Amino acid sequence: MSSNLLVVGTVAYDSVKTPAGQRDNILGGSASYCAMAASYFTGAAIVAVVGEDFRGEDRSLLLSHAIDLSALETVPGAKSFHWKGEYGEDLNEARTLSTDLNVLSGFDPRVPDDLKGVPYLFLANIDPAAQLKVLDQVRAPKLVAADTMNYWINNSRDLLMKVLPRIDVLIINEAEAKQLTGERNGVKAAGRILALGPSTVIVKRGEYGALLVSNDDIFAAPAFPLLYVVDPTGAGDSFAGGFMGLIAKENGHTKETLRRAVIAGSCMASFNVQAFSLARLADVTPEAIKRRYKAFHELTDFEGDPEP
Amino acid sequence: MSSNLLVVGTVAYDSVKTPAGQRDNILGGSASYCAMAASYFTGAAIVAVVGEDFRGEDRSLLLSHAIDLSALETVPGAKSFHWKGEYGEDLNEARTLSTDLNVLSGFDPRVPDDLKGVPYLFLANIDPAAQLKVLDQVRAPKLVAADTMNYWINNSRDLLMKVLPRIDVLIINEAEAKQLTGERNGVKAAGRILALGPSTVIVKRGEYGALLVSNDDIFAAPAFPLLYVVDPTGAGDSFAGGFMGLIAKENGHTKETLRRAVIAGSCMASFNVQAFSLARLADVTPEAIKRRYKAFHELTDFEGDPEP
Repeated sequence: MSSNLLVVGTVAYDSVKTPAGQRDNILGGSASYCAMAASYFTGAAIVAVVGEDFRGEDRSLLLSHAIDLSALETVPGAKSFHWKGEYGEDLNEARTLSTDLNVLSGFDPRVPDDLKGVPYLFLANIDPAAQLKVLDQVRAPKLVAADTMNYWINNSRDLLMKVLPRIDVLIINEAEAKQLTGERNGVKAAGRILALGPSTVIVKRGEYGALLVSNDDIFAAPAFPLLYVVDPTGAGDSFAGGFMGLIAKENGHTKETLRRAVIAGSCMASFNVQAFSLARLADVTPEAIKRRYKAFHELTDFEGDPEP
Repeated sequence: MSSNLLVVGTVAYDSVKTPAGQRDNILGGSASYCAMAASYFTGAAIVAVVGEDFRGEDRSLLLSHAIDLSALETVPGAKSFHWKGEYGEDLNEARTLSTDLNVLSGFDPRVPDDLKGVPYLFLANIDPAAQLKVLDQVRAPKLVAADTMNYWINNSRDLLMKVLPRIDVLIINEAEAKQLTGERNGVKAAGRILALGPSTVIVKRGEYGALLVSNDDIFAAPAFPLLYVVDPTGAGDSFAGGFMGLIAKENGHTKETLRRAVIAGSCMASFNVQAFSLARLADVTPEAIKRRYKAFHELTDFEGDPEP
């Protein structure tokens, strides 16, 4: 299957502690989560870099979902990016304990020739300088989405401002949307971001869901109500994977497709947080995804009008 | 019009400061907001107490919406309940600057004979002892809903635990649902509350909307996305008013009616926060409420399934 979606980001090892338990050196990284979630909808390829410590079993897991790893660079004698963090009882925010960039510090993303014409591109949360390098290499994708974070907003704002006019969709946490724009109101912040370039902004609200704002649409989706969250790591990237995967599958981005894509993203995020690492994402079935998508209808539908 | 909804709570004067401005001694109180919001759907009556300072214009405003004030007691020589508070830039939480109970300290709610058979009852956020007194006076209402707050959870937990088995719907802020149950997960907290008595719990999430949880339903509604909030005071009580008003109007509480009632409540809350005091609630038109209800459809609808 040729890849319709290119994901540029990290493939990493994480050590994570949550109220549900602790795991060391488990497969993580934005590109891993995103591509795995997208793989249920479309052929996905990863551009990322790992060290010599990257395990064969993790490579096999990604390959078993037909994820194209031809552009996953391995740096000899070096170690993979490693993130260590923990979550408190409320699971809303990770506390980073350590970040070992390792191979990531010299990451110079190179898009192979056969992927330069890819129609759909997701630039996960990496240095805006690297995001720009990727944008310089691809040929007129139909839709580009990107993520970013507080670190780049604080330390690479100028470069980030060069990324924004070149993407179609910014997928961003609410706190970071506020930080980027200086607006305290999340809806207003989304509106301000539209003026910086993207035609669509998706504000991620964690356990409260996501808000899509564009010049001609506004769409609110709840998160799937879960009684038990094992590990929130990768939820945003899984969301992006479901979102981009559905767009790539439908090969378009009408208002209706973008709304469906938000729900598909919310489904994949809700599965992801039910296990550490990519465990649940990797073993979910297409039938379970369909059922959860239908459950989002049941969760949000209401009838008629109230005739006051 | 005979009253189908009885609202027991406060009629108060508020002094409020928000980023949008400051107002002193404006009409407020849980019963005022709730009854005004409900008045677009059903005939509402208030059981509350005010002081001699209660202004004729405020009485007229409530009467102009056909709100039955026959059980609004006036205590001679005393002052009305007064709340003074302010909101920071994020508008999420009020900081109480002062609370002058005045007439409220001796509030002994008395339901007049002609209202004892009222089919729908809302017990706003008052002392659980007073809520129990009301429950002892009414005759088998079809549905009773109640609100409460951190103060009563901390200081009158035993009495509150006697209220819960006698009501059908608890409408409660998410932080307080967590506080009441000791659960950090909002969905789980709602489930725990069901075990304490009510058959339905509505978890209010402020700018993120509301979650309805019962033994056979779970429904998530976003808040209406507003670019500009003038004053959040009374949002929860306006929600309760729209919610109870629609139930009283439809004279039933099927799953479908409860969902529509959550949307009606969300509509009324969204209008309320667009002005100080009851100003917007008082001048909104039935047509504007219908339009906003439809806008909730536009905000949340999505199609089909993703066929992964």
